Amino acid sequence: MQLQVLLVAGTHGNEINGIWLFEEWEKSSFVLNTHGVKTCKVVGNPEAKKAGKRYVHHDLNRSFKEDSFLSFNSSSIEELRANELVKLYGYSGKNPCQIALDFHTTTSSMGSCLVVYGRREADLALAALIQNKLGLPIYLHESDEKQTGFLVEAWPCGLVIEIGPIGQGILNSKIIFQTKLILEKLLEQIHQVKNLNFFFPDKLIIHRHIKSIDFPRDQEGHIDGYVHSLRQSKDWHLLKKNDALFYKLNGETIKFEEDEPYIPVFINEAAYMEKNIAMSFTKRELWDFKKEWKQSLIDLIH
Amino acid sequence: MQLQVLLVAGTHGNEINGIWLFEEWEKSSFVLNTHGVKTCKVVGNPEAKKAGKRYVHHDLNRSFKEDSFLSFNSSSIEELRANELVKLYGYSGKNPCQIALDFHTTTSSMGSCLVVYGRREADLALAALIQNKLGLPIYLHESDEKQTGFLVEAWPCGLVIEIGPIGQGILNSKIIFQTKLILEKLLEQIHQVKNLNFFFPDKLIIHRHIKSIDFPRDQEGHIDGYVHSLRQSKDWHLLKKNDALFYKLNGETIKFEEDEPYIPVFINEAAYMEKNIAMSFTKRELWDFKKEWKQSLIDLIH
Repeated sequence: MQLQVLLVAGTHGNEINGIWLFEEWEKSSFVLNTHGVKTCKVVGNPEAKKAGKRYVHHDLNRSFKEDSFLSFNSSSIEELRANELVKLYGYSGKNPCQIALDFHTTTSSMGSCLVVYGRREADLALAALIQNKLGLPIYLHESDEKQTGFLVEAWPCGLVIEIGPIGQGILNSKIIFQTKLILEKLLEQIHQVKNLNFFFPDKLIIHRHIKSIDFPRDQEGHIDGYVHSLRQSKDWHLLKKNDALFYKLNGETIKFEEDEPYIPVFINEAAYMEKNIAMSFTKRELWDFKKEWKQSLIDLIH
Repeated sequence: MQLQVLLVAGTHGNEINGIWLFEEWEKSSFVLNTHGVKTCKVVGNPEAKKAGKRYVHHDLNRSFKEDSFLSFNSSSIEELRANELVKLYGYSGKNPCQIALDFHTTTSSMGSCLVVYGRREADLALAALIQNKLGLPIYLHESDEKQTGFLVEAWPCGLVIEIGPIGQGILNSKIIFQTKLILEKLLEQIHQVKNLNFFFPDKLIIHRHIKSIDFPRDQEGHIDGYVHSLRQSKDWHLLKKNDALFYKLNGETIKFEEDEPYIPVFINEAAYMEKNIAMSFTKRELWDFKKEWKQSLIDLIH
C-alpha cells in the first residue's frame, strides 16, 4: 500500500491557524516542504468553521467512537463527519492513509507539544523522533473515561499537535510558523523512516495524564473562582503542596493540597470549561525507547 | 432625578470576564466598592452569552441606531435587545440612568483603555478624570461611517472600557482585576463629581481615529496575509514608513508606505476580521481640557 499521511486542521472550527496554512498551501504548493511524502489535507469540521465555533452538535474530536460508527442514522453533524472522514481517508478507506496528524491550537500556554492517546507503539515511535529533533514535550492522554473518541485513534498511527497560547478565531504569525515547522518536521521524519534512514533516541520524556480537576463552584454549580494569577500560563511548571491554584473574589486562595507534586497542563483552556476541566495533572517520566515501537512504525509505513 | 449609572458587561456574549465579575458581585455585594453611587448592572446580550458567541443575529454594539428604534417588528435578537435596554434603562426609561459604562475585552494587546464615540462633552470630561487618575489611553472613535450604533451613544454620557489581550471565552485573573479596578475608579470619580469635590486636569491625551485597514486579500477576497510578527501586539506603538505590516507565506512582507506615521490600535482583534479590519490607525494629540466639558458632566449628574 502506498504511504499516505492524512493532515487535519480545524477539527475544532475556531482553531483557524492550521486551516489558513492549509488554504495557502493549496494555492501555492511551494510554501511547504513535504519531503516527498504523499499527503491528504482536510478541514476536520468545515461546518463548525463556517459557524466560527468549536463544533455544531458535538465535539468532533470526541466523536470517533466505535458505537458512533454504528449509528448510520445519526443527525449529528460531527458523528456524520467522523464517519465520512474514516470512509474517505481511513486505513481501509477510499483514499487510504496510514497516519493521521491532527493540528490544534489551545488558549493555554502549552507552547508546541504532541499528544498521544494510549500507548500505541507507532505513535510513541513517531513522537520520540519529533521530540528528539525539536525537543517538544509529549502529553500521554490515557485513563480518562470521560474523554474518549479522539480522531487520531481511528487511524493505526496518529498524533495531535497542540500549539498555544492563542485565542479562538485569531490568526497569529507565531502560531502559523510553529504549525508549519512541526508539520514539515513530521513529514521529514516519516520520509526518513520510509527510507530506513533514521535515528531513534534511547529515551523519551513523557508527561503521563493522571487526572483533571474542575473549577471551584458554588452551591448551584456556577464557577465561583478563577485560575490564580500565579498558576495562569504556568503549564509544564511543577505544582507542589500549598501552591496557589484558584482565587475567589472574596479574597480566598484555593491551594493545591496533595502531598505529591504534579505537572499541570491545559491550564484554563477556554474550550474545557464546559467539560468541567480547569487543568489536567501529569507526571513527568523518563521512559526507555523500545525497539518494538520502531518496528511497529516501520511495518506501518512499508 | 436620582443619579443612576448603567453598568453593562457581555454586550458581546463571548467577552465573559465582566459578566463573571457582575455575577460574583451580585452574590456578595462587598466584593466591589460603588462609593455610594446607585448602579444597575446588566448582561448586554444574554442570548449571545448562552450561545458562547459575540452575537446571535447582529453585533449588539452596532444596533443602537435611530432607525432600528423605529423597527418595532424586528426579529433580530440584538435589535430587540437594544430597544429593550433603552426602554428599561435609558435616560427616559423605566429605571432611568444618566451614564452608561460598557465593559469589553479585546484579543488585541490594548491593555486597559477608554473609548469615546464622537466628542460629547460629558464623555470627554469623565474620560479625562479617569486618565488623570489611572493614566489610561483614550481612543476617540469618530468619522467612521461603517461603524455606528454603539450602545453608549444611546445614553447622554457613556464610555466603553476595553481590556486586553484576552481570547474570547476565557476567564482570566488579570482581566477581572483590571475590570474591577477601572469600574471602582469610575464610580469613585462619578461620586466625587456629584459631591463637587473633583480635580479635572488641564490637558488630556487623545488617540483620534483616522481610518481602519483591511488584511491583504487574494483575487477571490480571501485573506492571504497575516499581521507581521513585528506588528503583532504592538498596539499604541508608533508605525512609521517602511515598518512591516503584514506577512504572506510566499515570503513577501507588506510594509506601511504612507509618509505620515500613525499609532495603530485593535491590531488583529479576532472579532474585526469579519468587519474587514486588521487594525485601526490613530493620531496621538494633546488636547486642552475645556471647562464646558466639566459643566456638562456636572449638569448631567445633578
